[in-house]
Amino acid sequence: MTHNMKLAVIPGDGIGPEVVAEGLKALHAALRGDVTVDETHFDLGAARWHRTGEVLPESELEQIKEHDAILLGAVGDPSLPSGILERGLLLKLRFDLDHYVNLRPSKYYRGVPTPLADPGDIDFVVVREGTEGLYAGNGGAVRVDTPHEIATEVSVNTAYGVERVVRYAFDLAMRRDQRLTLVHKHNVLVNAGHLWRRTVDRVGAEYPDVTVDYLHVDAATIFLVTDPARFDVIVTDNLFGDILTDEAGAITGGIGLAASGNINPTGAFPSMFEPVHGSAPDIAGQQKADPIATISSVALMLRHLGYDEAAARIESAVDGDMEARADAVEAGAPLVRSTSEIGDAVVARI
Amino acid sequence: MTHNMKLAVIPGDGIGPEVVAEGLKALHAALRGDVTVDETHFDLGAARWHRTGEVLPESELEQIKEHDAILLGAVGDPSLPSGILERGLLLKLRFDLDHYVNLRPSKYYRGVPTPLADPGDIDFVVVREGTEGLYAGNGGAVRVDTPHEIATEVSVNTAYGVERVVRYAFDLAMRRDQRLTLVHKHNVLVNAGHLWRRTVDRVGAEYPDVTVDYLHVDAATIFLVTDPARFDVIVTDNLFGDILTDEAGAITGGIGLAASGNINPTGAFPSMFEPVHGSAPDIAGQQKADPIATISSVALMLRHLGYDEAAARIESAVDGDMEARADAVEAGAPLVRSTSEIGDAVVARI
Ligand SMILES: CC(C)[C@H](C(=O)O)[C@@H](O)C(=O)O
Ligand SMILES: CC(C)[C@H](C(=O)O)[C@@H](O)C(=O)O
Repeated sequence: MTHNMKLAVIPGDGIGPEVVAEGLKALHAALRGDVTVDETHFDLGAARWHRTGEVLPESELEQIKEHDAILLGAVGDPSLPSGILERGLLLKLRFDLDHYVNLRPSKYYRGVPTPLADPGDIDFVVVREGTEGLYAGNGGAVRVDTPHEIATEVSVNTAYGVERVVRYAFDLAMRRDQRLTLVHKHNVLVNAGHLWRRTVDRVGAEYPDVTVDYLHVDAATIFLVTDPARFDVIVTDNLFGDILTDEAGAITGGIGLAASGNINPTGAFPSMFEPVHGSAPDIAGQQKADPIATISSVALMLRHLGYDEAAARIESAVDGDMEARADAVEAGAPLVRSTSEIGDAVVARI
Repeated sequence: MTHNMKLAVIPGDGIGPEVVAEGLKALHAALRGDVTVDETHFDLGAARWHRTGEVLPESELEQIKEHDAILLGAVGDPSLPSGILERGLLLKLRFDLDHYVNLRPSKYYRGVPTPLADPGDIDFVVVREGTEGLYAGNGGAVRVDTPHEIATEVSVNTAYGVERVVRYAFDLAMRRDQRLTLVHKHNVLVNAGHLWRRTVDRVGAEYPDVTVDYLHVDAATIFLVTDPARFDVIVTDNLFGDILTDEAGAITGGIGLAASGNINPTGAFPSMFEPVHGSAPDIAGQQKADPIATISSVALMLRHLGYDEAAARIESAVDGDMEARADAVEAGAPLVRSTSEIGDAVVARI
């Protein structure tokens, strides 16, 4: 644990800079001056690409690697060809910095509008593998744009890659309610599915206290709406994790609240923390975005870096703010606040 | 349109035989003796495998091909190794009979218990590609069960395969509300995604009346719970279709109502109709299963074979039964009926 935190900040596009500003406010408040934060801001994303044609120059990637952690707002804009920033920036960081744990907690806060009639007690974490599967960028196309085109995408899964994320998930389950659900589709994806399954069985033998369950991904999407309280820790591959965490965001009242960490548990490279939501260009610059997802991502970052007390301060301030929202809704006067007003309210509680 | 229908019936396992019996009752009632039905029952599924070790002998596949259509209940049992019946029977039929359209309508019937607070007016159809993608069985594993294992799954997409299903979806949209949503993940699966996208753009130019929309699969899982009424026709690949149709089943009150057709629109091989649900061994033989999904699958079959009037008879009988259920729920006295009582009630309405 350093008493000087070197933080790489990528505010990005759209609402990114607005929510990151609030995340940084919360960070400074939570650290109470005990730790100095050296922030380096990196101008990456759609705006940079339009201006310079660059996505992530190697030199900047190297600079980013010198930091203890990365805080990212959101990148992307419909004006860019699809895939440029996703593959060239977001996934490049996740892969090059070996973020093999994509950690995405889901929690339902009382009073938050949800499409479910009875959300119940939703409190689970998805441990999404972050460096393999269909995200490996392994695929191609021949005879493009002819009637004979063939396009492939290859899901790559290794014993090494699966075991390390499964082990992380079991460790997390031990610190939570000791229930782990593997989600895959091993009746169709027999090769990858059986690797995941065998790995969970083998590693699970070392964690006799953890109850293990299995669901096919299609069934998991059902249970997320019919019985989300059944989940504690879900471990799954990169694509299934992407799908399930967006659905999880929807049932808990919108991805505007959902935090995430792209974590390299070994510490060999900095981990990256970002809200699950995108850049939402339609509301950019209007102070309409909810910064809670980013602020909660900062709490995940503090936990990862070992600043547990500071993390707990943010977590309880967020809980407090969510309680205040619920009370206001129940009193018939829902709070209407700007992005920075929400940030200020959280800081006041910290 | 033959006046003699050769029907291959695969009752299968678990609740399969019970729901198929009701489907056949509805079929005979709807045809009113105008068409004779030659039924051949095929004993395939878990029970057969346990008894003989066989999944689908070539000779039986050849016999099945001689029929006009196939009605399948459900196959599968937890006592079998995963993948045996899925790859060897269900997917084998879909692939060998070139069922490139997997048609899955979703409709919300008033009064049906749904996890959504306000389901709204849900009425859409998923056109799921059935013969390519990650279901192609194209993958493998090396160094199995060692720390150096690598397991791959390859999604195979061809211009030929994508275009034919996209064209079907546009034709269907023209007969419905003329709105089509492509679901994919082209920001990550750039090769396959761009093939799908380009194909929808190109074919769409021939259908200027159809409004085309695009959603990433993760966003689609959100809209299915927050705004399912926005969908009319969804076209998507094999795996995304599998995931979205189960979620669609959940929001409309359970896959016990969801019908499906595995269709070869050219007629070169018989198409196969089956409820989306599985064999549910826990309630097998107890007359507890709802046969509506199977009966509605029979209606899809009749439409496919050109017996539109008979299909309409079943459709309105099902609507009538669903209305009666809703009325009973509203009157505070929900109907409690056995599988065959529901079948009889539908037949009475036909
Ligand atoms: C933007 C995209 C590449 C990304 C993903 O698919 O992982 C996003 O959906 C997410 O979940 O973080
Ligand atoms: C049983 C399985 C192979 C099948 C699929 O994945 O297609 C099922 O989930 C379905 O949706 O019909």
